[in-house]
Amino acid sequence: MPRFALQVEYHGAPFAGWQRQSEHPSVQQAVEEAIRKLEPDAPGIAAAGRTDAGVHATAQVAHCDLAKEWDPFRLSEALNHHLRPNPVAITACARVADDWHARFSAVERRYLYRLVSRRAPLTHEAGLAWHVRHELSLEPMQAAAEVLVGRHDFTTFRSTMCQATSPVKTLDEASVEAVSLPVGTEFRFRFRARSFLHNQVRSFVGTLERVGSGAWSPGDVAAALEARDRAACGPVAPPQGLYLVGVGYPEGPFG
Amino acid sequence: MPRFALQVEYHGAPFAGWQRQSEHPSVQQAVEEAIRKLEPDAPGIAAAGRTDAGVHATAQVAHCDLAKEWDPFRLSEALNHHLRPNPVAITACARVADDWHARFSAVERRYLYRLVSRRAPLTHEAGLAWHVRHELSLEPMQAAAEVLVGRHDFTTFRSTMCQATSPVKTLDEASVEAVSLPVGTEFRFRFRARSFLHNQVRSFVGTLERVGSGAWSPGDVAAALEARDRAACGPVAPPQGLYLVGVGYPEGPFG
Repeated sequence: MPRFALQVEYHGAPFAGWQRQSEHPSVQQAVEEAIRKLEPDAPGIAAAGRTDAGVHATAQVAHCDLAKEWDPFRLSEALNHHLRPNPVAITACARVADDWHARFSAVERRYLYRLVSRRAPLTHEAGLAWHVRHELSLEPMQAAAEVLVGRHDFTTFRSTMCQATSPVKTLDEASVEAVSLPVGTEFRFRFRARSFLHNQVRSFVGTLERVGSGAWSPGDVAAALEARDRAACGPVAPPQGLYLVGVGYPEGPFG
Repeated sequence: MPRFALQVEYHGAPFAGWQRQSEHPSVQQAVEEAIRKLEPDAPGIAAAGRTDAGVHATAQVAHCDLAKEWDPFRLSEALNHHLRPNPVAITACARVADDWHARFSAVERRYLYRLVSRRAPLTHEAGLAWHVRHELSLEPMQAAAEVLVGRHDFTTFRSTMCQATSPVKTLDEASVEAVSLPVGTEFRFRFRARSFLHNQVRSFVGTLERVGSGAWSPGDVAAALEARDRAACGPVAPPQGLYLVGVGYPEGPFG
């Protein structure tokens, strides 16, 4: 069967996460149902990152096996037609080799976390960022983010539900920038690694927010990392600020 | 009674527009109800721009008269508390002179119109921009926008429902910029004038989109303006791309 890679954008709010569940709507289910409008017997699909309930993606990557040799552009158009009215869009599609795998061929995941700091409630950005009502200092958060980069035992920053065999991962990037808004400041946290532990990015951001607010020092973050103890983590940041923004592969597949 | 100026941000989707109506929810009603949680006998409020159904604002300006000499910061906090869960936020508040008027003291209104051009449906930007599925050329739209600047009879670009006494207005700015998105292009149209006619900005953008798509030339826009005939206008762009982003006053009031 011809295999196709799909780049998938979605608003996480209506979904219990990427992964199909029996009781709750998932992004995977929405995409599989659209595929089965085209080919009723199509098998299930696999994705690079299993985003949690409420988490967004601008560039999740999945693959599907189809019976017909679809033109990739036509396939993406047909899927977008059948995905409506779900807030899910296929933004790129490519024919890939039979042994290419959205999850196992991936060598990098990139996440963005958006936090808006201002007194007033959010209106247009509601559901698209974490709203924090106090001010945050950029430089201490940048210093603390730097502490996280590299190869570490990240037990402190993973959910107790995490199923990864090892808590040791290499974080290639952890950065924070501040963007002035007409009202307030948006902080954009970016993380890049071959793979992440469950809740790792939200655990990072919740901890970095404590640093920005002055409750923690960058040294406290170093001590928390060193503790290798989930109890040493700061609060876990809420899902609506998190976006899976890219998946890297040795080649392409979207050209 | 002490008078206060309010800067108001709102998501237009749930509202029939700024102005209070008997049958439908309005932003004015939401703000007035919040004010009357503080002072049950407070009079109605006035705003700088009467935005239409579905139109957004990042910086609408209104004023209210209250019995008590409120601290402006405390007043904005109390109003935001009572505005929940409406997508309306008071983002600034100031004490103003008794003869200061949000509408009649205003000397400038600024609007932004967001249009996203890409094949795939919108997810995170749904309801926050006009989605156009074809490509648009920037330069012809910029040339056509230039035609609109200055003092003209804008009969072509005003709704037949417009109640302004004269169709002659001076447009101080009409500009278009293109911003590359990860998928697609966002076109940002900016307009600035002392005041606008009803549906003027959406009539401009609907016409400029025809130029960007190649259906009209900039010369066709000049001819449409010259015609002084509503029938010569292009389609009216939808409300969800339009934002009232600023109101100018001779001084302040928000410092």
